[in-house]
Amino acid sequence: MTEKLAFLGLGLMGGFMAGNLAKKGFTVNAWNRTPNRPGITVAQEAGAKVLPSIETAVIDADIIFTCVGDVPDINDVIFGKNGIINYAKEGSLIVDFSTIGTDAARDISSQLETKNIRFLDAPISGGDIGAKQGTLTIMVGGEKKDFDQCLPYFNAMGKTIIYCGSVGNGQAVKMCNQALCAVHMVALCEALMMAEKQNIDPNLMIEVCRTGAAGSWALTNLGPKIVASDLQPGFAVKHLLKDLRLVQEIMANANSELPGVTLAEDFLKIVSNLDQGEGKEQGTQAMIRYYNQQNNP
Amino acid sequence: MTEKLAFLGLGLMGGFMAGNLAKKGFTVNAWNRTPNRPGITVAQEAGAKVLPSIETAVIDADIIFTCVGDVPDINDVIFGKNGIINYAKEGSLIVDFSTIGTDAARDISSQLETKNIRFLDAPISGGDIGAKQGTLTIMVGGEKKDFDQCLPYFNAMGKTIIYCGSVGNGQAVKMCNQALCAVHMVALCEALMMAEKQNIDPNLMIEVCRTGAAGSWALTNLGPKIVASDLQPGFAVKHLLKDLRLVQEIMANANSELPGVTLAEDFLKIVSNLDQGEGKEQGTQAMIRYYNQQNNP
Repeated sequence: MTEKLAFLGLGLMGGFMAGNLAKKGFTVNAWNRTPNRPGITVAQEAGAKVLPSIETAVIDADIIFTCVGDVPDINDVIFGKNGIINYAKEGSLIVDFSTIGTDAARDISSQLETKNIRFLDAPISGGDIGAKQGTLTIMVGGEKKDFDQCLPYFNAMGKTIIYCGSVGNGQAVKMCNQALCAVHMVALCEALMMAEKQNIDPNLMIEVCRTGAAGSWALTNLGPKIVASDLQPGFAVKHLLKDLRLVQEIMANANSELPGVTLAEDFLKIVSNLDQGEGKEQGTQAMIRYYNQQNNP
Repeated sequence: MTEKLAFLGLGLMGGFMAGNLAKKGFTVNAWNRTPNRPGITVAQEAGAKVLPSIETAVIDADIIFTCVGDVPDINDVIFGKNGIINYAKEGSLIVDFSTIGTDAARDISSQLETKNIRFLDAPISGGDIGAKQGTLTIMVGGEKKDFDQCLPYFNAMGKTIIYCGSVGNGQAVKMCNQALCAVHMVALCEALMMAEKQNIDPNLMIEVCRTGAAGSWALTNLGPKIVASDLQPGFAVKHLLKDLRLVQEIMANANSELPGVTLAEDFLKIVSNLDQGEGKEQGTQAMIRYYNQQNNP
């Protein structure tokens, strides 16, 4: 049996992901809230059929993928006036790639259960490059049989596909992932400051340190971008700040603090306010602007 | 011509390194300040000749490798009453693997110049595993021709051998390396705290995050050790604290601050004082003890 797929949310990531599904020969009906976005063209050119409404995209879908922004967005797409819930087939499966936190994922799942719609939370990591190349890491929470049903589709979009347990657990692992990314950026910026203050070629420093016990994905991939003053977003400051807010909520509920994450969040907030608030649209490597400001006032 | 090598300092790292030189067929006369240490046996069994004094080890050496602890140690080994300077051949070359900071390295180099002895600073990264397997990263500062002369020996001990420019520059890059390692440990501990507070299997978290944009050497190699409560030193807290003191000196001289490094240093200091001061002998992954103390008082 050929399952029919819907894909809602053709942003920087979603466009490539829907496209990769289509390229593998799957039938993909896609939709995006805002028209004329680059991701729509990417999905379309790869063979996805872009439709004008959620209704037309999901009406006969067996599996509905969603890749939107924050909690209000996914709630609107699923439960809003023209949301999925009004049109989806009974027994269908919604798979959400957004990063929305464990509580929101579990809340959505129980609401959908009453409508006999299944739900997986499946946040992703790997940035636009990973989405384009189909090498994303996908962290999945929910029923194991639903995960198994989606494996062929996950494999079309990602390289590391990991079942994390019950619903919300994908989000929980993603929170750890974001905490690591944020603090690794602090490490990278401080190593670059040290290189600068010691008159060491920063690319030499990166070349040396990346191969040993100081290595990280950030150092290898974002270090050279900072050196080249390339602050284009692979992942934007505003998105990491949104995720760090979720991280802080989780830890506050557990009466715990993460001083390293808090430091990273403080610096990113400062950067996000630069350029009349346009700093938030830059990539997370723009954290270096905080350090430059502090050290070369 | 076969050059004669001396190797002074057969600690956790030095023993393996001298042994790897001997295994490649080079003639190695070795010495260690304190007798009956495991590194001595390692070097001896690999074919190095262990001698009772600096004098007997270096008297006919063309190249003298040193791998000791801090600035006073290397100063004593080179310039002390029974130090290298009293016995080394004119024109010989001292290569120091210790992490002592840029100023000390440059100071040693100029003192040796007046005695017609050459000097390279060549700090290493990769821990005891890297020393054992001969996969160290070696960062070298000094004259390029001296570096070239040592390449066959460096290749016997390490995998990534990089010439960093004039004397002291190896140390400068190593300082960046240590800053990265320290802050990556903060990231790792905080991700593990998040996994704990969210009831996520920490090994699952590591497995997922290590493959993507959150990956680091620390996460892959030290994460599982923390999960297994293995705090044995690959690199001891006291050694990282010594290096971070040098990092802070450099930044203070440049009127700069590294808030992430300072955080890591604060936590490591607290851990080093645990167990009546024995905490400092544990591996740097013992930073988790600070977090455990804070979160499970």
